Amino acid sequence: MLSFDEHNLTDEVVNRFAGCPDDRLKQVIQALVRHAHAFVKEVELTEQEWFAAIQFLTRTGQMCDDKRQEFILLSDVLGISMLVDAINHRMPDGATESTVLGPFYLGEHRVTPFGGDIAGDEPGERLFVEGTVSSPGGAPIAGATVDIWHSDDDGFYDAQKGLEEPSLRARFITDEKGRFGFRSIVPSSYPIPHDGPVGELLEATKRHPMRPAHIHFKIAAPGHETLVTHLFIPGDPWLESDAVFGVKESLIATLTTRQGGSYPDGSAAPDTWTHLAHDFGLKPTA
Amino acid sequence: MLSFDEHNLTDEVVNRFAGCPDDRLKQVIQALVRHAHAFVKEVELTEQEWFAAIQFLTRTGQMCDDKRQEFILLSDVLGISMLVDAINHRMPDGATESTVLGPFYLGEHRVTPFGGDIAGDEPGERLFVEGTVSSPGGAPIAGATVDIWHSDDDGFYDAQKGLEEPSLRARFITDEKGRFGFRSIVPSSYPIPHDGPVGELLEATKRHPMRPAHIHFKIAAPGHETLVTHLFIPGDPWLESDAVFGVKESLIATLTTRQGGSYPDGSAAPDTWTHLAHDFGLKPTA
Repeated sequence: MLSFDEHNLTDEVVNRFAGCPDDRLKQVIQALVRHAHAFVKEVELTEQEWFAAIQFLTRTGQMCDDKRQEFILLSDVLGISMLVDAINHRMPDGATESTVLGPFYLGEHRVTPFGGDIAGDEPGERLFVEGTVSSPGGAPIAGATVDIWHSDDDGFYDAQKGLEEPSLRARFITDEKGRFGFRSIVPSSYPIPHDGPVGELLEATKRHPMRPAHIHFKIAAPGHETLVTHLFIPGDPWLESDAVFGVKESLIATLTTRQGGSYPDGSAAPDTWTHLAHDFGLKPTA
Repeated sequence: MLSFDEHNLTDEVVNRFAGCPDDRLKQVIQALVRHAHAFVKEVELTEQEWFAAIQFLTRTGQMCDDKRQEFILLSDVLGISMLVDAINHRMPDGATESTVLGPFYLGEHRVTPFGGDIAGDEPGERLFVEGTVSSPGGAPIAGATVDIWHSDDDGFYDAQKGLEEPSLRARFITDEKGRFGFRSIVPSSYPIPHDGPVGELLEATKRHPMRPAHIHFKIAAPGHETLVTHLFIPGDPWLESDAVFGVKESLIATLTTRQGGSYPDGSAAPDTWTHLAHDFGLKPTA
């Protein structure tokens, strides 16, 4: 019984975890062993390929620091992040679909009043975003927190530019009708960080690192699951090939070009601006 | 076609790699995606578990340096290293079975004559190892290089003790009859390094980190595949639960206790010593 070969080794490894006192950990690790072994057997991984994988994983870990998480990027480009998201956020009718959080969320944002301008002097196409937050039944949710963040006209987040003050990033609180709104600029598409092992993987497999332009939302309210999602800018050339598989049809916003007049909060608008209106539904907690 | 959910996302990710110009890389990465996704779906991995995995992999990479390879340890304790070994070294009758190289091989060793003592003043039970190297047909192989290395009586390798000179480590060249032999001590069982993430995994799953006592061999000769294997010391309490699954029945050596007399090379032996004789077969290259 001491001779393990390619035919009986997997069972032996699975059995070796039989004494794990945590039932869920046991289930996860035994499944991991079975699937990892099935992969190795299917492709008949060579020793050189195994060692290249060891080196790739090592470099991926060593690329991480407090501002860069290369293993999350790897999970993203392999579609694992979106798969975990899909499994954990099966939404009822009327609830907005979720997508990945991404690496540029920095925690709770500065509360900003309705209509606040979060772009300041940033160049770009002027944008007014407004929306409502409600339960799937349609009842508006007052007092929900709406954290938003997005890239600038060149595709960079404030965190990447080393700014001291937050830019293109704020928190809004919905009013008694569940409404929020703000002024900003239209964000741009951008590449995920691709100067590390994940970038090498994309290059070797001839995949591009681009994400289509989007605005991040994180919306929380008592009695509801926190919603993490994006709204995508329609017409973006990368919509159909998002490097991290984050796009869902229902999350592509409708943008309307307006000429002059006033913004929805009554303030004066420039000669040309863009209006984005979108309503969000939150899934009630069980 | 832009709405990927848990049912169609895997196919989309696989298709995204369709343009990979290297057919083998494409095969490996597409299989990796399918198996990784199947694992996530089978266990319905939670977002907390996913993040714990991201952190575990990150710490594993960051534990690695020029003396420590934590990802190889992880591969070892999950049985992946031995599975890769088994797939890549399907041996014909008469060829010695292979096992893992391990982290303590330091490259080519100092050539030492037949009967040389590689233990010096190391305490421990005196041992004489002798063997032959042949083709599976039985023809002896002259001039084969036989690199050996093993732990001391406390279970440590020279590399772990910071010694300036190699100890319990040498190279022998087979004579015209394919023979080699050396004096040493009987090695001890030892734990794999378990002060890192892999040790935490073993602890959480109530697995021990022990390897049964063994001597490493790396045997090379022209016209034959290089053999990487161990010989295990019989009776070791960890033989049936080697932390890295390296034990094969055929690799458990036969040890004989001798009283005095002379070693096989004719030199004087101590009052009590141990004799290990084992013959190795190398697989011819195709």
